[in-house]
Amino acid sequence: MMKDRIQLDKQGRLRHLLTIEGLRREMLVELLDTAESFAEVTERSVKKVPLLRGKTIVNLFFENSTRTRTTFELAAKRLSADVININATTSATSKGETLLDTLHTLEAMHCDMFVVRHPDSGAAHFIARHAASHVSVINAGDGRHAHPTQALLDMFTIRRHKHDFHPLIVAIVGDVLHSRVARSQIHALSTLGVQEIRVIAPRTLVPPEPASLGVHVYHDLERGLRNVDVVIMLRLQYERMQGALLPSEHEYYRLFGLTEERLACARDDVLVMHPGPINRGVEIASSVADGPHSLILQQVTHGTAVRMAVMSHAMRTGESS
Amino acid sequence: MMKDRIQLDKQGRLRHLLTIEGLRREMLVELLDTAESFAEVTERSVKKVPLLRGKTIVNLFFENSTRTRTTFELAAKRLSADVININATTSATSKGETLLDTLHTLEAMHCDMFVVRHPDSGAAHFIARHAASHVSVINAGDGRHAHPTQALLDMFTIRRHKHDFHPLIVAIVGDVLHSRVARSQIHALSTLGVQEIRVIAPRTLVPPEPASLGVHVYHDLERGLRNVDVVIMLRLQYERMQGALLPSEHEYYRLFGLTEERLACARDDVLVMHPGPINRGVEIASSVADGPHSLILQQVTHGTAVRMAVMSHAMRTGESS
Amino acid sequence: MMKDRIQLDKQGRLRHLLTIEGLRREMLVELLDTAESFAEVTERSVKKVPLLRGKTIVNLFFENSTRTRTTFELAAKRLSADVININATTSATSKGETLLDTLHTLEAMHCDMFVVRHPDSGAAHFIARHAASHVSVINAGDGRHAHPTQALLDMFTIRRHKHDFHPLIVAIVGDVLHSRVARSQIHALSTLGVQEIRVIAPRTLVPPEPASLGVHVYHDLERGLRNVDVVIMLRLQYERMQGALLPSEHEYYRLFGLTEERLACARDDVLVMHPGPINRGVEIASSVADGPHSLILQQVTHGTAVRMAVMSHAMRTGESS
Repeated sequence: MMKDRIQLDKQGRLRHLLTIEGLRREMLVELLDTAESFAEVTERSVKKVPLLRGKTIVNLFFENSTRTRTTFELAAKRLSADVININATTSATSKGETLLDTLHTLEAMHCDMFVVRHPDSGAAHFIARHAASHVSVINAGDGRHAHPTQALLDMFTIRRHKHDFHPLIVAIVGDVLHSRVARSQIHALSTLGVQEIRVIAPRTLVPPEPASLGVHVYHDLERGLRNVDVVIMLRLQYERMQGALLPSEHEYYRLFGLTEERLACARDDVLVMHPGPINRGVEIASSVADGPHSLILQQVTHGTAVRMAVMSHAMRTGESS
Repeated sequence: MMKDRIQLDKQGRLRHLLTIEGLRREMLVELLDTAESFAEVTERSVKKVPLLRGKTIVNLFFENSTRTRTTFELAAKRLSADVININATTSATSKGETLLDTLHTLEAMHCDMFVVRHPDSGAAHFIARHAASHVSVINAGDGRHAHPTQALLDMFTIRRHKHDFHPLIVAIVGDVLHSRVARSQIHALSTLGVQEIRVIAPRTLVPPEPASLGVHVYHDLERGLRNVDVVIMLRLQYERMQGALLPSEHEYYRLFGLTEERLACARDDVLVMHPGPINRGVEIASSVADGPHSLILQQVTHGTAVRMAVMSHAMRTGESS
Repeated sequence: MMKDRIQLDKQGRLRHLLTIEGLRREMLVELLDTAESFAEVTERSVKKVPLLRGKTIVNLFFENSTRTRTTFELAAKRLSADVININATTSATSKGETLLDTLHTLEAMHCDMFVVRHPDSGAAHFIARHAASHVSVINAGDGRHAHPTQALLDMFTIRRHKHDFHPLIVAIVGDVLHSRVARSQIHALSTLGVQEIRVIAPRTLVPPEPASLGVHVYHDLERGLRNVDVVIMLRLQYERMQGALLPSEHEYYRLFGLTEERLACARDDVLVMHPGPINRGVEIASSVADGPHSLILQQVTHGTAVRMAVMSHAMRTGESS
């Protein structure tokens, strides 16, 4: 609940988006509803609205991610904001400046929003806690902690196809232990009231105390997929291979790779999702990634609309509070 | 002719610009005419038109080139498009994502145009062949294959000074074998109907089957320059020096460097051109590069106008088809 | 005086800003007055004016500085100019192109302003001397020579708090010998007519012939701070540590670090300034940097307004002359 409070202003409106944890169902639904209207904008010939004209949004990336940076940059530009890209792995702090001095300097330049990507869990909260009152912070992924806009765009994609969350059985497959995406998805699915959340993973990659997260754990992919409405594949991080946590890539695919054959265990109208970038032939077969159940590219499309929604909500609050 | 077809929509209008080869004379003239109107825009105090407002253009560079990236970025911004720069040598694909997955991801973000630079010949065609129907691809140089906007801006520059292509003798000097610029220039000059195209190069750097390209080959610079109306110098790629293809830099200049003395072999009103960046004292003497016949900086100026023309043509087609 | 003339057009208006040296008091005051109006713009909800719409400003950085690049980029965008960022440490000239060829190429693209950062003293003058008549050059720091926009924003900050320059005693503390910031500050303070300028530094870091600069030299921080109205701390460059010019970081702090205790030697209403980024515990104690006398973040805020003022003055002149 602490985490909830820092994200909202006194009127209970979104000021920062740091984590899905603690956000009320109504807030998530409101964000998804706003994203619907922006999804329509991004399909127009002129994909631009003047909503954030004269606002300055800083992409402050302490971890490289061209893909994520690009989606936030596009969302900001389509809202007519000015965007500054800062690759913080090579700058500022490299001169020995502290993180907080870097932040306060950007605030003093009258920047309005920081989109933060950071390798350390909790970095986005840390930044939000120290941010000036006129600044909004959006977490674009921090360590193993959270990636809330990814979870929101996944919920948006599910809602577009399934309409009602309550009857759904959703399986998340892969390295759930280290995944900020999975953590945010579990909180979102749980808040939106799906019937059941399953985690399908090798024993070494299951999060501790799954019961407290409200998830059911499976170590066998085929059994875990039975009756599933939505299957969310996680990206296998090659770094993990180095340690003893994972078998070889080949062995992983044999046990946990999503093939057409295995997908047949799920419901006929199952949705296949993946946050990307995908490793073809590692966590997912190409025929599934490109197949009729796959929503992987739709997720990307919805990502822009969802980020526009988050930005516009957080900024509006900033103005009137 | 296959190459022609992929560039045009069903109404025969430009959709992609991948190569000059196979484009009809009327198409080239239409692009040059449109560029004339944009040349006027870039000389105004407010160098901007709202033509591509709300469109997203991605500079997708798999090969570093600040200069080329900058001209396309300027052209796009002067058309009021939003521009995303992606240095693909350091991103996306470095995470193991395939080229096509990268492309489809950007398409799913509703990007409208890819400006592609790639070290492999044929990369732009490959991308265009797999592009979604709402996306235009502009080749900003692929391997040794083609650099069509460079050739168009050269034609624009020649036309501004010589008006009629038919009586012209044009010489291209240097490493024609490896030059994507030269290949595109030869196709453009030939389509626009110049009287004669000459290639002046060491024996090791002449393209195979020059007759099939319709060019006359010279190995002696002074003889090749006789009666020439336009001389186009190519940049010497230092990489070639490593192999046995080229003598030393000093020796090259002695044999193929364009000096004032040699330039006197050409017509009195000869035009000197170079795609840049120039190597002073290697392929061209400073006195010639900065002399009264040189159009090198005018080429740069025309480059923006020509790229605005190409972008606006390709986008317009995209909309209405 | 030579330096003065190149910065002004025939009507005596600002065309380039290369150095404070030689600029008349009226010019500095006019820039500060214009900056006041822009300071108001940057506090609005829509922080944007259409003044430089359709103009192209190039950040041409031959030395990395995300912070400085960001303030100029923000200033340009808030004036509605198009901005091109060129990291010249990794581009163009790396292909063997000369600096002047790079410049003339950008000019040929109809760029209107170069914001130049360069490790060599005099680089900005060199570039201005060779610039086309339609181009303005702003020095964003060249070697040990000058950093005029930093000095202007410091003057702006002092004027906001002290109103009248004449009665002020201002101390500059640190490595004055190597500091382009200090050189520009000394010229600005002197032109604006402060009562006294003090330099407080180790013997090895005092500029030669301080009397000709009109400054009084102190080697003892506490004595130097007596009766001071404004103290400007300089950033300690770690590179200097390598040579024999400086004692250890610890020793430096013991002798020249600004602590609360030492600050008590100055006037009660002393202002503490620093161009940033600060080294906490090296040249300044955290309690002073974050304390009630510190204007460090206000300096950053004023930096955007001052740079907008400089850009708009230089561009206006460019148009009408």
